[in-house]
Amino acid sequence: MILILLGAGTGAGFNLNKAYAKGADWLFICVSWGLAVTMGVYVAGSLGSLGHLNPAVTIGYALFGFFPWDQVLPYLSGQFLGAFIGAALVIIQFRPHFKATPNEKSGNKVGIFATQPAIKSPLFNFLSEVIATFAFIFILLNLGDFTQGMKPFIVGTLILVIGAGLGTTTGFAINPARDWGPRLAYTILPVPNKGSAEWGYAWVPMVGPLVGGIAAAGLQFVLK
Amino acid sequence: MILILLGAGTGAGFNLNKAYAKGADWLFICVSWGLAVTMGVYVAGSLGSLGHLNPAVTIGYALFGFFPWDQVLPYLSGQFLGAFIGAALVIIQFRPHFKATPNEKSGNKVGIFATQPAIKSPLFNFLSEVIATFAFIFILLNLGDFTQGMKPFIVGTLILVIGAGLGTTTGFAINPARDWGPRLAYTILPVPNKGSAEWGYAWVPMVGPLVGGIAAAGLQFVLK
Amino acid sequence: MILILLGAGTGAGFNLNKAYAKGADWLFICVSWGLAVTMGVYVAGSLGSLGHLNPAVTIGYALFGFFPWDQVLPYLSGQFLGAFIGAALVIIQFRPHFKATPNEKSGNKVGIFATQPAIKSPLFNFLSEVIATFAFIFILLNLGDFTQGMKPFIVGTLILVIGAGLGTTTGFAINPARDWGPRLAYTILPVPNKGSAEWGYAWVPMVGPLVGGIAAAGLQFVLK
Amino acid sequence: MILILLGAGTGAGFNLNKAYAKGADWLFICVSWGLAVTMGVYVAGSLGSLGHLNPAVTIGYALFGFFPWDQVLPYLSGQFLGAFIGAALVIIQFRPHFKATPNEKSGNKVGIFATQPAIKSPLFNFLSEVIATFAFIFILLNLGDFTQGMKPFIVGTLILVIGAGLGTTTGFAINPARDWGPRLAYTILPVPNKGSAEWGYAWVPMVGPLVGGIAAAGLQFVLK
Repeated sequence: MILILLGAGTGAGFNLNKAYAKGADWLFICVSWGLAVTMGVYVAGSLGSLGHLNPAVTIGYALFGFFPWDQVLPYLSGQFLGAFIGAALVIIQFRPHFKATPNEKSGNKVGIFATQPAIKSPLFNFLSEVIATFAFIFILLNLGDFTQGMKPFIVGTLILVIGAGLGTTTGFAINPARDWGPRLAYTILPVPNKGSAEWGYAWVPMVGPLVGGIAAAGLQFVLK
Repeated sequence: MILILLGAGTGAGFNLNKAYAKGADWLFICVSWGLAVTMGVYVAGSLGSLGHLNPAVTIGYALFGFFPWDQVLPYLSGQFLGAFIGAALVIIQFRPHFKATPNEKSGNKVGIFATQPAIKSPLFNFLSEVIATFAFIFILLNLGDFTQGMKPFIVGTLILVIGAGLGTTTGFAINPARDWGPRLAYTILPVPNKGSAEWGYAWVPMVGPLVGGIAAAGLQFVLK
Repeated sequence: MILILLGAGTGAGFNLNKAYAKGADWLFICVSWGLAVTMGVYVAGSLGSLGHLNPAVTIGYALFGFFPWDQVLPYLSGQFLGAFIGAALVIIQFRPHFKATPNEKSGNKVGIFATQPAIKSPLFNFLSEVIATFAFIFILLNLGDFTQGMKPFIVGTLILVIGAGLGTTTGFAINPARDWGPRLAYTILPVPNKGSAEWGYAWVPMVGPLVGGIAAAGLQFVLK
Repeated sequence: MILILLGAGTGAGFNLNKAYAKGADWLFICVSWGLAVTMGVYVAGSLGSLGHLNPAVTIGYALFGFFPWDQVLPYLSGQFLGAFIGAALVIIQFRPHFKATPNEKSGNKVGIFATQPAIKSPLFNFLSEVIATFAFIFILLNLGDFTQGMKPFIVGTLILVIGAGLGTTTGFAINPARDWGPRLAYTILPVPNKGSAEWGYAWVPMVGPLVGGIAAAGLQFVLK
């Protein structure tokens, strides 16, 4: 229940960036994503959770003994449900803006909710998500307890630099819940001027981050 | 008296952003707002106050026992008076710029002082302020004592991400004093090329943040 | 001697921003100025000084007993000399760029080294520098010892927000040494395609910051 | 082995910024570079190294007794190899983007991997790298142990401000490994639409940073 709200808050922060009509630049999007994660981690830490907002983190950690297996399912449910609710709040927040925006082709409304590749190329889009998530989670594992003190801020800057350096190809899902939760909300909730939810691409932001996360946790397991 | 000065400083920081003629982007505005709050909290903390610059915070906290009721009135007075004085200083600081700017229609001068919606839609503008203030104050309540150490900086980044993620619809008042104090100053003080103060909209940035703040404090009360 | 080097480093960081030909925006300039001060304060703190890089800080503090008088003259000399040397290094660093830039009218080269008002209006330009420096130094006095831990970073964000909120009228000298040192360097050193050094305006960034700094220290003296 | 991965991560972060087709501005590049170094230092610190990612730092420190000589060669190897691998990962990550970008003259692809001067002028390009690296390493030496707590973040902001203030002439290599490792990768690995690797300029980002680093360490040795 707590993670739902938290996911809602961060999910809203993520998606709403792109909803602003005035052509926000990539730095703006990376800063906002980063700080949304920062705030999510602070709230999670304050309310007693471990601050995981990402199935790729949770599963990668669990596989190599950094996280207890019996917590995985509740965490995953919270992550996807939170992302879904966050997306629903976004639809309310921006309803007049959705109404004022006719649906362009190539799914530019779904891009508010879920990731899309800059260039469609399934293999390299997948590799992009693997590499970006690998870098994200490998660094995260070396930050120590990331819910205390200023660490959530550093996690936010990590998201920022992953987005800036490695996210310019696929929009850096690096988190299956962040992509599938809002994509599902976009599919089933009433959104004015809705376009296709592009489920054909959705395997990439699901499988890529999981593979990258497992690889990063495995490497850390070997090194430590 | 102390909070007046403080409010003046932060109020000035807020409003002056938009006064710069050269089309500052949204990231600039969010960064500046955020850091203005950071500095306000540092000064308030140093001078012995609890760092509340926002009636929605003060009233929300008080309703659920996070803040003593007998302090509410002095705090509220200081918040509105500080915002008013800050706006007055802005008028001095930018007087030649006001003179050099003919008044456009649709009140673009009042936008320096008070918030305006991107799309006029009273219900959704109100919901926007409720959701943004709810997210802001719920996260704030989970940051612990936010006047010490680096916490005021984190509060500033919280304002930044609320503005970036949820403020692009109504200009994120999320604070009745921040809106009404400068709006009043704009109304009664001599401002070159002045336009309408748009009091017809002013109930939104007053009631929305109060509802959102009370909801956030109530949820936190239930969770903790 | 130490402060000279330090002043040089920060002075260089300040001035070089604007030298880049590609139209850096105001956020860029404020971030860079802010972090230049951050680094200057770290170096000064590490090398045993109190981290004052600004005559308005030094004199304001000294007048109200926050700083010993017999240190004032050495500090001031270091501040002006450091700023001068920083400007000299900038001239070397950017020599090919100076050569490649014909001198525009209205002194756009002097703007690399010293401040210029957006709108010429001696009285309000002066008031702008007074208000900006007052806000800067009053907040600074409430940050505690600003050379330790993360405080130099916070001082940098303070410069950022002063520049963003109050610096858009006169270019926020808020520091006589930062203006006069490089202005003198620009006047007497060989700079390709040099224009007027605009000494007619130079009293504003000298007197304004001193008045603002003294007022801030005086207020703090009364409050504490 | 550890530093290779780390170098790869930061190298990738660095180079990928510029690979994004949509004209990222200089602030974006400086922020991303800065945070890439931050993350590199965190990972290095966590895995037990001293956090040097830069031969100019390592050699400058070693020459003046701030670093043991017998560690220099392993560190240097790791730095260059890490940068090479990072560049290789970039080529995978962005392969469809390379394919979609025809090779412009004047080597704009090599600029993704290695530095290029804004204005070709060997003497002043060299002096630019000397001054920028001198400022970088002199400040770094005054930050104390830079792998602990928030210090890696401050190192990132240092890179940001060096890039903003002094990097606009030569693209701030300030690190021979950062330039030569990716330049070599660009030369020998298959990159679609490849241009010249511009080895004729490569002595500048090799010799300039070394001279600047040695000068900074020497000055610090004298002052302390």
